[in-house]
Amino acid sequence: MSVHALIARMAGDACDAARVLRGTPSTVKNAALAAMADLMTARCGDIIEANSRDLDRASASGLSSAMLDRLTISERTVSEMARGIREVAALPDPVGAVTGMWKRPNGLTVGKVRIPLGVIGFIYESRPNVTADAAALCVKSGNAVILKGGSEALHSNLVIGEVLKEALVRADLPPQAVQVVPVAEREAVRVLLTLEDRIDLIIPRGGEGLIRFVAANSRIPVLKHYKGVCHVFVDESADPAMASDICFNAKVQRPGVCNAMEAMLVHEKAAGGFLPSMLRRFLEAGVEIRGCPETCKWEPGIRPAGESDWGEEFLSLILAVKVVGGIDEALDHIERYGSRHTEAIVTSDYARSRRFVEEVDASVVLVNASTRFNDGSQLGLGAEIGISTTKLHAYGPMGLEELTTTKFTVFGDGQIRP
Amino acid sequence: MSVHALIARMAGDACDAARVLRGTPSTVKNAALAAMADLMTARCGDIIEANSRDLDRASASGLSSAMLDRLTISERTVSEMARGIREVAALPDPVGAVTGMWKRPNGLTVGKVRIPLGVIGFIYESRPNVTADAAALCVKSGNAVILKGGSEALHSNLVIGEVLKEALVRADLPPQAVQVVPVAEREAVRVLLTLEDRIDLIIPRGGEGLIRFVAANSRIPVLKHYKGVCHVFVDESADPAMASDICFNAKVQRPGVCNAMEAMLVHEKAAGGFLPSMLRRFLEAGVEIRGCPETCKWEPGIRPAGESDWGEEFLSLILAVKVVGGIDEALDHIERYGSRHTEAIVTSDYARSRRFVEEVDASVVLVNASTRFNDGSQLGLGAEIGISTTKLHAYGPMGLEELTTTKFTVFGDGQIRP
Repeated sequence: MSVHALIARMAGDACDAARVLRGTPSTVKNAALAAMADLMTARCGDIIEANSRDLDRASASGLSSAMLDRLTISERTVSEMARGIREVAALPDPVGAVTGMWKRPNGLTVGKVRIPLGVIGFIYESRPNVTADAAALCVKSGNAVILKGGSEALHSNLVIGEVLKEALVRADLPPQAVQVVPVAEREAVRVLLTLEDRIDLIIPRGGEGLIRFVAANSRIPVLKHYKGVCHVFVDESADPAMASDICFNAKVQRPGVCNAMEAMLVHEKAAGGFLPSMLRRFLEAGVEIRGCPETCKWEPGIRPAGESDWGEEFLSLILAVKVVGGIDEALDHIERYGSRHTEAIVTSDYARSRRFVEEVDASVVLVNASTRFNDGSQLGLGAEIGISTTKLHAYGPMGLEELTTTKFTVFGDGQIRP
Repeated sequence: MSVHALIARMAGDACDAARVLRGTPSTVKNAALAAMADLMTARCGDIIEANSRDLDRASASGLSSAMLDRLTISERTVSEMARGIREVAALPDPVGAVTGMWKRPNGLTVGKVRIPLGVIGFIYESRPNVTADAAALCVKSGNAVILKGGSEALHSNLVIGEVLKEALVRADLPPQAVQVVPVAEREAVRVLLTLEDRIDLIIPRGGEGLIRFVAANSRIPVLKHYKGVCHVFVDESADPAMASDICFNAKVQRPGVCNAMEAMLVHEKAAGGFLPSMLRRFLEAGVEIRGCPETCKWEPGIRPAGESDWGEEFLSLILAVKVVGGIDEALDHIERYGSRHTEAIVTSDYARSRRFVEEVDASVVLVNASTRFNDGSQLGLGAEIGISTTKLHAYGPMGLEELTTTKFTVFGDGQIRP
């Protein structure tokens, strides 16, 4: 079968499964998720065996040790996958919630009710455990999902897919609700992106290259973020100790993720009491600083920042630092170089906290807290399937509710339009 | 200047204007809308004069009289545009509404607040009065808009655009908040659709050809519907008089619009008591019936329906009619041939009303009411910029709220992520 025919058939099967899933009660969906978690543990050996085949091929093809590490599934990874699925099962089901209802002057009762989106295409190049996470979130929210992972994880993903299907069958749900694309070619992605009549949403997760490819080729709505260029603005009035802890956490706690700080902006009047000790704290932690001329004055040997350092997503222990004249310059800098992902201010000034929150255009804007809190679990959504900096549908972390939409229901007693 | 440079500059200007608009209070936005309405009336002569140039060119190029009629702006059209703008000004401002707020165990207060989308690209080939409607809705919701109308209405749209800009200046708002593309080439649309860093949403309105072109070429999220293939299912238990009035209204009241009924499904047990008089009522109103074999038995001379009649958007006084075995067949038919736009049931059976509402996948599902109610004003949204059958962001009529998104605001007192 050609890749085109294969993907088109998978999408058709997904539509059929979605029709069943959209009317499936929470208890049945939860039973399917419980079976997924149980089977994941029971089939641990098969999963690790398939993963070792991926690892052999990957190391033979010269994948970096960091990439091999990301690819590796251990017993602990499997039990974490199972735990993740159980956590999703425990979350409230968004489907069926009535988000509003009102009566019209002509007696019509108009309501909006939450329904699943239908079929979701999830395209990723992350760790294979994402396969289980994404499937659990989609099924819990009543959606069918087509999963296209990276070619290096194909065997792992296929076995995980088999386990998920088996669990669906045990819960009397159609196994086509979760399908792993069984081929490695990028052509499969290209075909997937054209099937707008069968797929309702595409979520890409991975490097900027993959996401740009998806955005450029999709006829289906895409929820995505390209990158997270997050700033912390340390205001004149900031408590220096609080600012230091927040900035340190935002940069160092996990530098390789999208909600880590990439640039620190410091009010010129705060610089003297804050920058010297902050810079030393960063340098001691192995952070490379790229500073504006004003920053470089405070600590000898700092590398001067070039224009390309502003707006750069380093994803590592590198930090751009700029001294700014005040909140206006900070806001202008963020407007120009930010990526609409996460922006924070540290301040004790009421008016400036309000201005920052109102004027910054980003999916999450924080006052006196680390940028690392832009995360579905941390913000209280329970779990997340990704973070969106596309403003449509969802802006910020996407949980179960963001995998649904609403339809209008209208109850009348014979009304016609005059 | 090349079309590319022109459109890119317009989009850049729109971004700057959007930054101002997103913090503009309702009072100022409403003042701008009031000035738009006043100036529209004051500049009525100029608008009609420009329109007559479009009409001259259009009739010389052989445009149909129906199209010329749609293109024509009269004094009454202008006063209706002014009234429409005032109605939008009177609607509540969605921006700034807090849609939720909660506290996390670590003390963070997390909220979601409604914000404008930013820059909207509106691509249309409808009557030139849509220019004023769309601009009013976008400005009221705090968005900048780039308007690309049909080439046949270029002069009319440009003058209306000038009037709108003048009103913005009077209200001390940037005139770049509303920009009409001053060239007719489709290349302008193609360029617009690639500017994903500057434009947040594309709304196309017009024929299916235009909308498919936009969907196929856009890197920016698109809210759209291709067509409305709306069904009414007359259940066995339907009150025949109510069913007759609803079906007649849905088909005949305004057959050329997307929420008109295109196919009527009749329960076989209702056929005898309902179909003969219903068919005669339609035929007397000049409706051409295309019937299934069972339908044709009830009225001689009815044209038999072909396969292509199911799922066809006639947009005229043509109706496909099918007798079905029951609600299951009706649901299957709608799933297969419907366009996810508007679907209605007429019934007096409680269980079937529930099943229909739950199982039909359409943006608006009605019980005992005409499909013609799928409309922003009719459902209580105040006004609409379009109807979406894309499930993302908005499913159904889109009012002011659908021109906004939400961002997360997080208030802490020094929290860092452990």
